[in-house]
Amino acid sequence: MKIIGSEEHFSTKETLAHFRPPGMVSPKDTGSKVSRMSIGETLSNAEARLRDMDDAGIDMQVLSLGPGVEDYDAAFATSLVAETNDELSEVVKKYPNRFAGLASIAPQNPEAAADELERAVIKLGLKGALLRSHSKGEHYDIQKYWVIFERAEKLGVPIYIHPREPSPDMIKPYQTYPELTGAMWGFAAEAGLHAMRLICSGVFDRYPNLKIVLGHMGEALPYWMWRMDSKGPGAKSKLKKKASEYVKDNFYLTTSGMFYHPALICAYLALGADNILFAVDYPAESSVEGISFIKAAAICPGDKEKICHLNAEKIFKL
Amino acid sequence: MKIIGSEEHFSTKETLAHFRPPGMVSPKDTGSKVSRMSIGETLSNAEARLRDMDDAGIDMQVLSLGPGVEDYDAAFATSLVAETNDELSEVVKKYPNRFAGLASIAPQNPEAAADELERAVIKLGLKGALLRSHSKGEHYDIQKYWVIFERAEKLGVPIYIHPREPSPDMIKPYQTYPELTGAMWGFAAEAGLHAMRLICSGVFDRYPNLKIVLGHMGEALPYWMWRMDSKGPGAKSKLKKKASEYVKDNFYLTTSGMFYHPALICAYLALGADNILFAVDYPAESSVEGISFIKAAAICPGDKEKICHLNAEKIFKL
Repeated sequence: MKIIGSEEHFSTKETLAHFRPPGMVSPKDTGSKVSRMSIGETLSNAEARLRDMDDAGIDMQVLSLGPGVEDYDAAFATSLVAETNDELSEVVKKYPNRFAGLASIAPQNPEAAADELERAVIKLGLKGALLRSHSKGEHYDIQKYWVIFERAEKLGVPIYIHPREPSPDMIKPYQTYPELTGAMWGFAAEAGLHAMRLICSGVFDRYPNLKIVLGHMGEALPYWMWRMDSKGPGAKSKLKKKASEYVKDNFYLTTSGMFYHPALICAYLALGADNILFAVDYPAESSVEGISFIKAAAICPGDKEKICHLNAEKIFKL
Repeated sequence: MKIIGSEEHFSTKETLAHFRPPGMVSPKDTGSKVSRMSIGETLSNAEARLRDMDDAGIDMQVLSLGPGVEDYDAAFATSLVAETNDELSEVVKKYPNRFAGLASIAPQNPEAAADELERAVIKLGLKGALLRSHSKGEHYDIQKYWVIFERAEKLGVPIYIHPREPSPDMIKPYQTYPELTGAMWGFAAEAGLHAMRLICSGVFDRYPNLKIVLGHMGEALPYWMWRMDSKGPGAKSKLKKKASEYVKDNFYLTTSGMFYHPALICAYLALGADNILFAVDYPAESSVEGISFIKAAAICPGDKEKICHLNAEKIFKL
């Protein structure tokens, strides 16, 4: 079976030189693997990456930038992502059967971000964009960011919302135990809240064909689909649909960093195979372990084809 | 099959008179059912409650106070919970086959809370205590509160940690959409973080037989059991066990307010039947709907007996 990994990260020398995880204690202090590893693999190392994919049996990686640019000065970030997208498109062109790419964009200047998304898709052949959850503490449900979603819908490409440490306005109770600011707990708390803010904002009523991708088995949204309706604003809501309907209609989730059968089965029962994409979260996670996980999943072969490659081919237009 | 509801709420005239949901907008504004209903049912209405139980087929309710006292002045709260526990024990004594009770305690004075827990268990025959997540913004992993856990372990009774709105240090990004501060999302974000803080604090190494009960299908902890280990502090941790092992060894979860098969199956696959207890979350939820849900669950009869009554009988010593 063909296998595509939908959230696989890279860095560049330039992005690595500038990256500091703001608000988070350093990976050294938390002992967490995630930041240490996910910023460590540049595209210059494509051959090593391909060997890792071959060893595991991964046909294609959809590449996205690991270190975030969301907290830099707007002008610098805007220029850095253009450079990064150019570099990414070179690698994709060199290995068109092995790599596809998601653009980096700098939401600090929303209009420029929308333009860069368009350039990356039309001129460079990239397949959407990845944004880390919150830019300087702001979530993208704020209307000034909607131009990015408008452009994504117009181009027919998805936006991947990637976790990061909780926003400054909520991080304090996580910091008592530094590990809770990271992938152990805070990442999902941040990205899950972000997804719910998007739903509540009405952005999916305005752009009904907008596709948002979430990693980590949907940041637990599948677990809460009944309760988010049962305890939502109900008749008082200005939204056109129930919260869970937006999850079904506008969200796709990947298995990145969540090689856990109980969570996969929950997501599969809640959303069905059409909304789930395989991903490893390379290099933070082991490709071999990811493949063992998805092969062992108690999911029928036809649906597994969807999860392993058909959905990625459709959503990213591969 | 005998059915026990493990998180069923009541109020008293006295507690209702004082309750204001701090930090939350009022239920009227959010349109949420939860606060409006869960504070509305006093114990003087025991006959109506029994009719509701009979109509649904619920044999016994484990009662706990709905409105919280955690933000009141310490002396007032300490006196209010003593009164409430006396009132609760009267109702339990009147209907010993239909009701059991969890004590209210006021963590504002931790030593007094531990003493009241002991009085409620030894003198009044109550079966543990329920605390709402955070008191004036403080979580109970802070060591001054451990005297409560020490006493609970000594008495062999569980502490139920009930959600509330996110603590003041993290509520701001939820408040943009008032519904997100409540049961739709923020309740679980608050109680889930609280559970993780308890795990990280080492309280379960100090009190290895401490039992914590969580509602709402474990506030999503079952979904994250693989990732909390994979991204936890690992070798650098001072804890004796992996995070997921504390979830298995020290936590029990109920189905309160989560009549959702994908989440139940996830919890069942993650934790097994021994850690799951049936609950409705009366009067916020429908008893009839809760019973329909658990009867339809794809769980073998023996395990369903555990979930529906055997676990409650064991953990609460009914």
